[in-house]
Amino acid sequence: MANYNTEKIIAGEKAIDFIEDGMLLGLGSGSTVYYTIKKIGERVKEGLKIKAVSTSAVTLQLASSLGIEILPFNDIEKTDLTIDGADEVDPELNGIKGGGGALLYEKLVAEVSDKIIWVVDSSKMVSKLGKFPLPVEVIQFGSLHTIKKLKDRKFNPILRMKDNKPFITDAGNFIVDLHLGVINKPMELNNELKAITGVVETGLFLNLVDLAIIGQGTGVRMVKRNS
Amino acid sequence: MANYNTEKIIAGEKAIDFIEDGMLLGLGSGSTVYYTIKKIGERVKEGLKIKAVSTSAVTLQLASSLGIEILPFNDIEKTDLTIDGADEVDPELNGIKGGGGALLYEKLVAEVSDKIIWVVDSSKMVSKLGKFPLPVEVIQFGSLHTIKKLKDRKFNPILRMKDNKPFITDAGNFIVDLHLGVINKPMELNNELKAITGVVETGLFLNLVDLAIIGQGTGVRMVKRNS
Repeated sequence: MANYNTEKIIAGEKAIDFIEDGMLLGLGSGSTVYYTIKKIGERVKEGLKIKAVSTSAVTLQLASSLGIEILPFNDIEKTDLTIDGADEVDPELNGIKGGGGALLYEKLVAEVSDKIIWVVDSSKMVSKLGKFPLPVEVIQFGSLHTIKKLKDRKFNPILRMKDNKPFITDAGNFIVDLHLGVINKPMELNNELKAITGVVETGLFLNLVDLAIIGQGTGVRMVKRNS
Repeated sequence: MANYNTEKIIAGEKAIDFIEDGMLLGLGSGSTVYYTIKKIGERVKEGLKIKAVSTSAVTLQLASSLGIEILPFNDIEKTDLTIDGADEVDPELNGIKGGGGALLYEKLVAEVSDKIIWVVDSSKMVSKLGKFPLPVEVIQFGSLHTIKKLKDRKFNPILRMKDNKPFITDAGNFIVDLHLGVINKPMELNNELKAITGVVETGLFLNLVDLAIIGQGTGVRMVKRNS
């Protein structure tokens, strides 16, 4: 069995090759991009000049503790490169994100990035999305009604809990995980979900990513999106 | 010129005719439904047995102060009747809401109501929607980027301010008012707006309302939706 943690380290650190002096970066959240951020911190101490925007409170704290200058997202116009993780990635580099709950801010940052790289271990690569439960961010007020709408559509929604209370996102919303098994039409599903009152955003990231760096055993495999 | 305040009182109070003992009500927000809620408070003191859910912190406080029992929205399955105001209403009873900033909770409550009545003064009736700026609720994080997306689409967005700071909704979001002039295709516009990352909800209320009670001079005019 592959050592996914080794793969996370290898993929995460490999992304450093794409960072150039003077860049404004988007920094994602999660267990693989963690190693990218640690490596960036090392390089910054050695003199690399970059600035960044963060996609979560956790990443903000990590990056700041490593001496990486974080700018408020509203203060920048765009980023040169965003590096982030993903929970599932298909061969077209569409994916599911939000296992950590930061999907909304991650998508907002991704959409203003010139280039997006995902760093993942090999377990994240799938032929079709949907085995990983799809996270959907929903408004707290009336969340049971929003969940009912998702249940009526046979999306098998489960409110995400943490310490016996609903998990709360950085934006103050809930996460509902949809146990779908397989997603045959990601774009249609995304549109249908976003149209529901009470749904803020979905974890489907479609037609956004340029390059996936996949840890594979003791090396990496790179997959570019056909554009 | 019509006395719109008189019309608000007449329309707001007229809605009481549609309330029956034992009903579970949705109570909207705003300057006209204010008079409905006041009247409900009087009737409750006289023995009317109703319970209600509220669509805003302001309405919650008003209704509670009048002795109206307010249930948490997540505790109810549906309401029998929701009474709310609107900022613009067209002949098909589609409308714009959110002048007071409560559009998200109002739409969530509206969607679980068996019947919806809008109470308005005659100035709210228009042949086509759009002269009233369309309120859109957006996530605070990256709001400038969301506003830029709206600007790029020529929607003339203006961040709503209050006391020199951005207005904040009960859900903790911002409101952006779109100065459109006229809305030719409300459904298409609503779908386009909802699909934007960072947009939580729009003030377009389409195919929801059953009856409009319109204050007109010293009387009321009633318009039913053709279903």
